[in-house]
Amino acid sequence: MPDYRRRAAREAMSVRLDVNGIMADTLGAAGITREEVDALAPRTSEITHSLRGRRSAGELPFYDLPYQKDALARIKSVAAEVRAESDTLVVLGIGGSSLGTKTVIRALGTDAPRVAVADNVDPWSFATLLDGLDLTRTTFNVISKSGETAETMAQFLIVRDLLLRQLGAVDYARHVVLTTDADAGALRQIVHDEGFRDLVIPAGVGGRFSVLSSVGLLPAAFAGVRIDDLLAGAAWMDTRCQNADLWKNPGYLLGTLLYLADTRHEQNIVVMMPYGDRLHGFAAWFAQLWAESLGKAETLEGVPAHVGQTPVTAAGATDQHSLMQLFADGPADKVICMLRVEDHGRELPVPSAYADLDPLGYLGGTGLGKLLNLEQRATELALTKKGRPVLTLTLPQLNAFTLGQLFYLFEVAVVFAGGLYRINPFDQPGVEDSKQLTYGLLGRKGFEAQRAETDALLARKRDDYIL
Amino acid sequence: MPDYRRRAAREAMSVRLDVNGIMADTLGAAGITREEVDALAPRTSEITHSLRGRRSAGELPFYDLPYQKDALARIKSVAAEVRAESDTLVVLGIGGSSLGTKTVIRALGTDAPRVAVADNVDPWSFATLLDGLDLTRTTFNVISKSGETAETMAQFLIVRDLLLRQLGAVDYARHVVLTTDADAGALRQIVHDEGFRDLVIPAGVGGRFSVLSSVGLLPAAFAGVRIDDLLAGAAWMDTRCQNADLWKNPGYLLGTLLYLADTRHEQNIVVMMPYGDRLHGFAAWFAQLWAESLGKAETLEGVPAHVGQTPVTAAGATDQHSLMQLFADGPADKVICMLRVEDHGRELPVPSAYADLDPLGYLGGTGLGKLLNLEQRATELALTKKGRPVLTLTLPQLNAFTLGQLFYLFEVAVVFAGGLYRINPFDQPGVEDSKQLTYGLLGRKGFEAQRAETDALLARKRDDYIL
Repeated sequence: MPDYRRRAAREAMSVRLDVNGIMADTLGAAGITREEVDALAPRTSEITHSLRGRRSAGELPFYDLPYQKDALARIKSVAAEVRAESDTLVVLGIGGSSLGTKTVIRALGTDAPRVAVADNVDPWSFATLLDGLDLTRTTFNVISKSGETAETMAQFLIVRDLLLRQLGAVDYARHVVLTTDADAGALRQIVHDEGFRDLVIPAGVGGRFSVLSSVGLLPAAFAGVRIDDLLAGAAWMDTRCQNADLWKNPGYLLGTLLYLADTRHEQNIVVMMPYGDRLHGFAAWFAQLWAESLGKAETLEGVPAHVGQTPVTAAGATDQHSLMQLFADGPADKVICMLRVEDHGRELPVPSAYADLDPLGYLGGTGLGKLLNLEQRATELALTKKGRPVLTLTLPQLNAFTLGQLFYLFEVAVVFAGGLYRINPFDQPGVEDSKQLTYGLLGRKGFEAQRAETDALLARKRDDYIL
Repeated sequence: MPDYRRRAAREAMSVRLDVNGIMADTLGAAGITREEVDALAPRTSEITHSLRGRRSAGELPFYDLPYQKDALARIKSVAAEVRAESDTLVVLGIGGSSLGTKTVIRALGTDAPRVAVADNVDPWSFATLLDGLDLTRTTFNVISKSGETAETMAQFLIVRDLLLRQLGAVDYARHVVLTTDADAGALRQIVHDEGFRDLVIPAGVGGRFSVLSSVGLLPAAFAGVRIDDLLAGAAWMDTRCQNADLWKNPGYLLGTLLYLADTRHEQNIVVMMPYGDRLHGFAAWFAQLWAESLGKAETLEGVPAHVGQTPVTAAGATDQHSLMQLFADGPADKVICMLRVEDHGRELPVPSAYADLDPLGYLGGTGLGKLLNLEQRATELALTKKGRPVLTLTLPQLNAFTLGQLFYLFEVAVVFAGGLYRINPFDQPGVEDSKQLTYGLLGRKGFEAQRAETDALLARKRDDYIL
């Protein structure tokens, strides 16, 4: 294993950002010019200054998760306990409480020990999951910052009842770990009352920035992922993103280019397209980060804005046979961000056969991973030929160190882009209404007005518009 | 089991399209008016007439897949043979050769017998899949219309070699079923030469319209899915989509409304958001259908157009905690299409506990499926309140009959929308370039010019644009 305390090891395992494919030098008219980027300099140095100040003041604690000490020791200790007791960890969480874990487990997890993530209230899939568990060797990690996420609380009530019935009042508590706020919320009270083990979500770290906190690290450590390397990767990206020169700062440059693509080049869609199945989770994690951080109705000054680039997830090479036709020939409204893994860790040689049969013969002697990477390169260049912007991120390998870099890179990029859009990248006011209407429909006390509102809206439906 | 030869059974199990949430009556300015739809009448009757004629002339054979007879008998017979010999069917296919099967299996499949779909050339995931197979009880279904899809052919060469080595030259052929064109292509020649079993992809049925052909039906039948019900559902939707009144024709109305949303209301994104995990595959199937059919550079008359609405997949209720912030507050550039399942087939009651703890107490006595459906309704109405267009499709249950309806509904809708855009919904010229550049990089004979082209493009990259 490389020792990432050595700079040479970090350099050799650096994630590389290639922006050639989005710049006008390569792309012509649809591309971004150096001048466009440089013209933002007054604003970008303002943002840089402001973020640095807020970070120093402790207002943006996600930045410092790579350097956590006490919390990390606690996470490792709980993970070791749970690992000794259980073969399966089931995460009950949704959104920011699950997407990071799904990413890490999909990328680096194994079948045993197994981490399952239940992030929906679909009765079929949750019942099927529960059916397949050996409860005596299972721990449930219930994750909610607020301690009142309806979906997660409903799952928790079902699981708690099941554990009580099957394992009894003495043993059941040992099968639950609650991850929640240090002080506030219903889950915190339950920890006190029932004596569950718990982990703390650091104050000021929102769901979509929480993968490198207890939220993502406990399941990762349980699964045997090298969480020190995850954090070391993030720290290395932090170092790289301190560079005052925008052209040498991957996070700031990435945020700036996507902002310019959206606001100046009508590229209101960004496609995250990993060439590697184990990175599919990352694409979904990115989609939440980008959508929820930047999709805002108002600027910081309260001016109506309705901004935000729409993230789309795609799979290379698979979606070359699906979405690519649209990306290549449809409206010029997208930036394609490709993820490329140089060394996939395994290779499958393609045997030579049917040498005289042209559509198969040429494949003999290549390898499956080589083919995948050649397809990435060919598709990137084919898009360039058509004037379609592409960003390429290359991972030397897919491991905890490179994945940690990716997480941190996009967190830095989205916060910086938030500065350019002049919005608050840390809130999500737009989903409040749907939560409250749900409470009304469920008959929660205090939400009678919302119930009346939904009734009125439903009454307005015209029957002849239902086919 | 309901007998779908009875009209009452079909009516009771009909998928319902609710367009209230996209119409101006409900939505105000962002909505579509009845007048806008009716103004298209000359064009829509032209398209209706043209499609009817082409269907009668046998030019659009996908329309008639619900009524296939001989092919169906052959599919069932091969499925029964394979089922007797194998516990696992591995589909080697990509794009239209895999997305339909992934949809059907995700929605209606079981763990045993198991259908695995290998739709990428990721060496890690393909090697992991192969590692876990008992080859003596596994059959591989290799699917490629052209018989020269590079990804599928590479997988096939690996699998054939593996089978030959492990099972020997006498037995290996019995573990492969090829699904390809009746006459043309390399796979057809291989069927002749090596004596594999085969199924025919009907002439004129393209990949994304092939789920109800041998492509999707063999794996479905192997998995025990009621393929007669799939076809009966499609036939029922066909009947409903014959209605000459656009306002009573769900396929034509759906295609028209999404076309108008895109071209007249700047809603260039359509989000497919099933509330039910088993429908996630359907969202990806839809994404291919919509993107690849409508994303076109030119009109039928050869006029540059660059049209096509971008499909986004989302998961209800999960993505209410992820993408929904953007959908609710971001740019007004989306139509959200929600899928709702009235009866999920299983229910998990939420036990009452912590009755005096407000954020949990109100949940006691509900059910997980009920919660999911209330969230769908609340989110639909919250979007309506914000003036964001929503289409809702309701399935009484998720079964083969309703899934068959969904497939056919969107196939009809996309072909009709193609008529409105004046593009060819059946081709995909935009991905040819990337294939050819890949051949060049692989050193395939005859593609030396493409190799030179990629070399030239790569040489243009600036080092200072790679961070």
